[in-house]
Amino acid sequence: MSSFFRSRWVDRPDHVTELAPTALPEGFAAGGVAAGIKPDGQDVGLIYSERERTTSAARFTRNALVAAPVSVCHEANLSALRAIAVNSGNANVSDGERGLATARAQQAAAAEALDLEPAQVAVASTGVIARELPHDKAIAGIRHAAQALAPNAKAFSESILTTDKGPKRACLELALPSGATVRLAAQAKGGGMISPHFATMLCFVQTDAGLAPETVDLLTGVCVKRSFDRISVDGQLSTNDAVIVMANGASGVQVVPESPDELALGASLDALLRQLALEMVADGEGASRVGRVVVRGDAETVGPVARGVANSPLVKTAMAGADPNFGRILQAVGQGLAGRSEFLVDLAVDGLLVVSQGTMVELEYPDEWVRVEASFAAAEVEFEIGVPGDGGEAEVFFSDLTHDYVTINADYMT
Amino acid sequence: MSSFFRSRWVDRPDHVTELAPTALPEGFAAGGVAAGIKPDGQDVGLIYSERERTTSAARFTRNALVAAPVSVCHEANLSALRAIAVNSGNANVSDGERGLATARAQQAAAAEALDLEPAQVAVASTGVIARELPHDKAIAGIRHAAQALAPNAKAFSESILTTDKGPKRACLELALPSGATVRLAAQAKGGGMISPHFATMLCFVQTDAGLAPETVDLLTGVCVKRSFDRISVDGQLSTNDAVIVMANGASGVQVVPESPDELALGASLDALLRQLALEMVADGEGASRVGRVVVRGDAETVGPVARGVANSPLVKTAMAGADPNFGRILQAVGQGLAGRSEFLVDLAVDGLLVVSQGTMVELEYPDEWVRVEASFAAAEVEFEIGVPGDGGEAEVFFSDLTHDYVTINADYMT
Repeated sequence: MSSFFRSRWVDRPDHVTELAPTALPEGFAAGGVAAGIKPDGQDVGLIYSERERTTSAARFTRNALVAAPVSVCHEANLSALRAIAVNSGNANVSDGERGLATARAQQAAAAEALDLEPAQVAVASTGVIARELPHDKAIAGIRHAAQALAPNAKAFSESILTTDKGPKRACLELALPSGATVRLAAQAKGGGMISPHFATMLCFVQTDAGLAPETVDLLTGVCVKRSFDRISVDGQLSTNDAVIVMANGASGVQVVPESPDELALGASLDALLRQLALEMVADGEGASRVGRVVVRGDAETVGPVARGVANSPLVKTAMAGADPNFGRILQAVGQGLAGRSEFLVDLAVDGLLVVSQGTMVELEYPDEWVRVEASFAAAEVEFEIGVPGDGGEAEVFFSDLTHDYVTINADYMT
Repeated sequence: MSSFFRSRWVDRPDHVTELAPTALPEGFAAGGVAAGIKPDGQDVGLIYSERERTTSAARFTRNALVAAPVSVCHEANLSALRAIAVNSGNANVSDGERGLATARAQQAAAAEALDLEPAQVAVASTGVIARELPHDKAIAGIRHAAQALAPNAKAFSESILTTDKGPKRACLELALPSGATVRLAAQAKGGGMISPHFATMLCFVQTDAGLAPETVDLLTGVCVKRSFDRISVDGQLSTNDAVIVMANGASGVQVVPESPDELALGASLDALLRQLALEMVADGEGASRVGRVVVRGDAETVGPVARGVANSPLVKTAMAGADPNFGRILQAVGQGLAGRSEFLVDLAVDGLLVVSQGTMVELEYPDEWVRVEASFAAAEVEFEIGVPGDGGEAEVFFSDLTHDYVTINADYMT
């Protein structure tokens, strides 16, 4: 079986063993059913922690237009969630009071079915926006999913998908430095409307380690910044993004803040979320390859320049064509530096310097040209850019722009 | 013959008559030849004012990475230009001292052939970037073009094209309020790498009116802001953009600052440049239709929101699919307002209100739905957006994103 850690940019931590990707940590159950919101396939999922003392943390989209389920989550008890009800096929956005009422009804239906308070339940939706979410189907789906709960995430991880090519999921066993063993699992979705500030992506993470609420929150914040905050398919910030991490302590292992165990758990969560983020980019709508751009230099400048390169349709189409047109990378960098009087920029492609201080390096023909061409044609390609100044570094993972992106997005609604 | 003023957003001023689009004002001559920089077709052009007291003004890209010809122009006498030498097929960017030397040699060759000082000659290049511009072909082309000068812009307007579907040119006759008659002509190119801060676009304008250098500069600045600064094909700021306006006084009509004649000339230049800007968007790489987005509200907010909508690949692909998915417009507006706690936004499509204060309006079925669908399927569609606050208004014209954009850009270099 091939490793979950497929990207060259993510290493599996030494203390991690991969379990079946649909496995769950102890004390979690999940279900997924077809409720008829999508024309076919599973579209309502539910995940549940059996343990009363579950802690949690969450991060949501920063878009000013937030979906109704995100508004409802902001009113829930985000540090002590016990369950999450998700639907795909409709994102429940821009439907005013009616949409809010449906999201609250989803939360209440899950709470009732699982004998919880509504504030212990998070809700999430993904799919077409600015259309009414069918209330009755959504509620019936939740009741049905509650009856279908099982100790694995197979149906759940499939019920949350939209344009994804396949499920994104993993379950890891962690041998902690203290000698204890815990599990860490995640199910994610995301293909389009992905931007550096994490976008129509959903990611649900479970561990049977016990964690203080502050620890879950800290680890979630740090790992989201290094993963979903650093990816872009099309530069578009969704209205529904959500990352929710739950820790239920069912393993009997309590992870103490600032201990080696916490470090090991953090390293595992980091690798897990980075690989899932890379899966989203690789599965970006129509994507045929993934780029990594790293910009070093002035701290104020590196972020906008990295995003400018990652979101340039010209850079992305050159990648789609396996065309080593690195002039377009320079153009995008220059746009990010607009107004500066000089262009003292370095560019390396997979470690080979092709531009030095703004001027093309004479590459050796044919060997070095062949290397650059091979880089642009590979599944993963890395661009390192140096801009004036120092102290800053920014990293963005991004997909190319292909015909399939246009096909998927020109006809998604109709 | 169909009017040059094809867009519903540009009216032909009353005092304007259209002449043959390749005509030139009195005292100007132009030429274009095939010099072998492109695989085939004309690729070197020259335009020349015969009058010694010609005044001029210019605007260039703000990209920090500027092409060698733009650097050379910045050292020329931009208020008294007599000639412009242009090549297509190669943009002469990122080639260090060699590229600068070639651009200076182009300037010197045109000056020698026309008996001018080098500082009286502007140079411009467009085409592939980060490749050596073949020096000898470029110079031979200029000498050849100087021998081919004629009192029309036919060959010149064709020699400056790259991915354009066809030439963009017009010649207008202006009946000024004083009773005098002058001519105003322009030749432009531009399809890709077009952004609100005008991009791989070139536009050359001639008038046989006499204008003080300050007047040419003022009119150029105002009209560029209302035209080429407001268009986007792909949000990409080029390294080579140039707009150069020349006034040679050959009509014998001197236009006095702040006179009715100046107003009439300004209105004509405004209409001319706005229509040419719209031609660039309509001829945007792969474009099938043109959108106009107007955002009104807080002055700091309206510009980024308008650009966010115009550059959203999701909005652009919805337009390509004639898909009335205005939820994607709301998503892009919300991204532009990221961090705000409320989303009190109005959206009208061709005058029909579809979102009021962030919530979808119940449209009358089927009449109003048919109207919205027809708007998204038309050659031109207008989106008016209201955001909180007031005092600001921003307008951007933009193209959709089609399969042809990907085809053109995935294989442009190779």
